[in-house]
Amino acid sequence: MKTKAIFYHAGCPVCVAAELNVASALDPAKYEVEIVHLGNDKGRLSEAESAGVKSVPALVMGGAAYHINFGAGIEALK
Amino acid sequence: MKTKAIFYHAGCPVCVAAELNVASALDPAKYEVEIVHLGNDKGRLSEAESAGVKSVPALVMGGAAYHINFGAGIEALK
Repeated sequence: MKTKAIFYHAGCPVCVAAELNVASALDPAKYEVEIVHLGNDKGRLSEAESAGVKSVPALVMGGAAYHINFGAGIEALK
Repeated sequence: MKTKAIFYHAGCPVCVAAELNVASALDPAKYEVEIVHLGNDKGRLSEAESAGVKSVPALVMGGAAYHINFGAGIEALK
């Protein structure tokens, strides 16, 4: 079964670079990657926060949040 | 041809978690991953800094550095 990986971003330049280079680098045989734009999809903010996301871009996999560089704090997206 | 990805860490708990979950999640068909422990291999510090690494764990791919969460600043490893 594939592991779900969710990449949260907000369209910022740092986010886009991370999306192109990191999110797309995950092994497609092992991971099903969902891309969520928190600026456009504010309904997913609470889910992201519950997963431990404090800034974007971030990747949530296997129950843990991995913040990749720093684009924007999650507070700035509310 | 595979892209080289270098995962720099220093053995910290944050580093180990990122290594197990992020570095190992990269697509092996596209990336050749090298793991470098900067605490043990201080000769690689200048190379890491040149690539833009400011803290560990970090992943350098395609000429860009991606800092994954924060384990330790690179200054602390010198």
